[in-house]
Amino acid sequence: MELIFLGTSSAIPTNHRNHSAIALKSFGEIILFDCGEGTQRQMTRARLSPMKISKIFITHFHGDHILGVPGIIQSMAFRGRTEPLNIYGPPGLSEFVKHIKNFGYFALSFDIIENTISDGIVLDEEEYTVMCCKTEHSVTNFAYSINEKRSPKFLKENALKFGVKPGPDFGKLQSGIAVKVGEKIIKPEQVLGENRKGRKIVYSGDTRPCEQMIEFSSDADILIHESTFNDSHMDKSYETGHSTASMAAEIAKKANVNKLVLTHISTRYKDNKTIEKEALEVFENSIVAEDMMILEVKRNEP
Amino acid sequence: MELIFLGTSSAIPTNHRNHSAIALKSFGEIILFDCGEGTQRQMTRARLSPMKISKIFITHFHGDHILGVPGIIQSMAFRGRTEPLNIYGPPGLSEFVKHIKNFGYFALSFDIIENTISDGIVLDEEEYTVMCCKTEHSVTNFAYSINEKRSPKFLKENALKFGVKPGPDFGKLQSGIAVKVGEKIIKPEQVLGENRKGRKIVYSGDTRPCEQMIEFSSDADILIHESTFNDSHMDKSYETGHSTASMAAEIAKKANVNKLVLTHISTRYKDNKTIEKEALEVFENSIVAEDMMILEVKRNEP
Repeated sequence: MELIFLGTSSAIPTNHRNHSAIALKSFGEIILFDCGEGTQRQMTRARLSPMKISKIFITHFHGDHILGVPGIIQSMAFRGRTEPLNIYGPPGLSEFVKHIKNFGYFALSFDIIENTISDGIVLDEEEYTVMCCKTEHSVTNFAYSINEKRSPKFLKENALKFGVKPGPDFGKLQSGIAVKVGEKIIKPEQVLGENRKGRKIVYSGDTRPCEQMIEFSSDADILIHESTFNDSHMDKSYETGHSTASMAAEIAKKANVNKLVLTHISTRYKDNKTIEKEALEVFENSIVAEDMMILEVKRNEP
Repeated sequence: MELIFLGTSSAIPTNHRNHSAIALKSFGEIILFDCGEGTQRQMTRARLSPMKISKIFITHFHGDHILGVPGIIQSMAFRGRTEPLNIYGPPGLSEFVKHIKNFGYFALSFDIIENTISDGIVLDEEEYTVMCCKTEHSVTNFAYSINEKRSPKFLKENALKFGVKPGPDFGKLQSGIAVKVGEKIIKPEQVLGENRKGRKIVYSGDTRPCEQMIEFSSDADILIHESTFNDSHMDKSYETGHSTASMAAEIAKKANVNKLVLTHISTRYKDNKTIEKEALEVFENSIVAEDMMILEVKRNEP
């Protein structure tokens, strides 16, 4: 399970930061959270194929979070994609998709499935759920959480002892399918241990600090929270529906998350020093995201 | 007069080439020709402010030539631009602008002036005209020419002899305004020589080679012509309404242009070697554009 930060700027891009976009590589999929202008090229740089995106989750309809969607869709069509693409977003999504479909000449070769979201579970897959929570921004913004389901620990030593070879058979057993080793049948229950807590990742989108984010982020492995400003712009931050580093860190602390990643950094900051320092003073395990940063999401429990 | 190549890829961007966009820095303006996704960031890299764009000329409504327009407009609005922005493009422009205005939430702080073009002169300014010419592509595409008007040569030595100091007074005299040196009045006719031919730049947009481009490009100082393919894809190129390097070079040769610049290069070519070689075999003064390449447009005549 990997998070790839494709864009970490706020409204205006810089030489080092592109507009907002985060890719989650897991569950055999590439899932995008927000998709600012230039995301398809950032994916090329990160060696991720836009063709492999299964779902796009949009936090809100500000240009710096959405203007990469038309290009991704047109490139998918240009390359002949046929699988449907799921897009999730706040009310207004249908209007957004309508404009995308009529933006210049291109032949859409696949279905775009619109999923207009409201607080609660927005997606329930075999291995994970996605939930959302309305936050406080200048326009409607939803934070998302990806919640891996509880799954049994795979007892690799047991599998090896029974003669199962690493490879596809490991995957089958992990998915609950028996495999044959010579004439013997090895059943999943012989190599699966107790259920373990799944991983949880939360992404805020754009928001001023708000109570509901504490509950929504509780015990997350990773909280990706916006930090447009540092603490010298507390008032401006609050007025414009944004957060400072220490505000984001307060949320992380109260929600008891494992790690805080700050993103959506204003162009006014030429380096991360102040933002990082202000977050660290409140919450120890804080980092500032950089474009192309890859974060492996490890399990907290063994 | 400078041309800055902001994007030189075809439909799909690569690590080295962004989508199509060319900036012309001249006449105290920044004029954009096409504006693919990510152009605003390319401008930042080239140290050109998107705020200073006066006009955008669109060749055709394929995503790789237009998807940067919404972002540029939203960034201009974010920064509080008030001057109107002129956009020129083929029929369909009104629809395009309508979608831009409704794409996500933002407050447009200036007027967008739509100029739907057809063959002929599309703009007549004091110092230059812009003309367009319909070419042959899979959708309606117009090539553009920028034609600097004839202007008298400034005889610097005479000005210095009369005691005029280099600086604003030079500019005034060049613009036909008399200046004072001490008690003496220096008139423009004392320091201006004969009229000289203005510079001419032509940009093809996307097109298969066509007769009208020869006439339209005649005697241009610079012809920027698309060369999506090399000669191993002659048939594909023609079928899809594109050109190969040697096809573009034939146009340059027949039109008697001074310099040919090839752009809109397919992702399949990892370097410029074949394209450059095939063009040079037909037309000597050919180069392949690179992102961030700056070309000073010099006068052919002294």
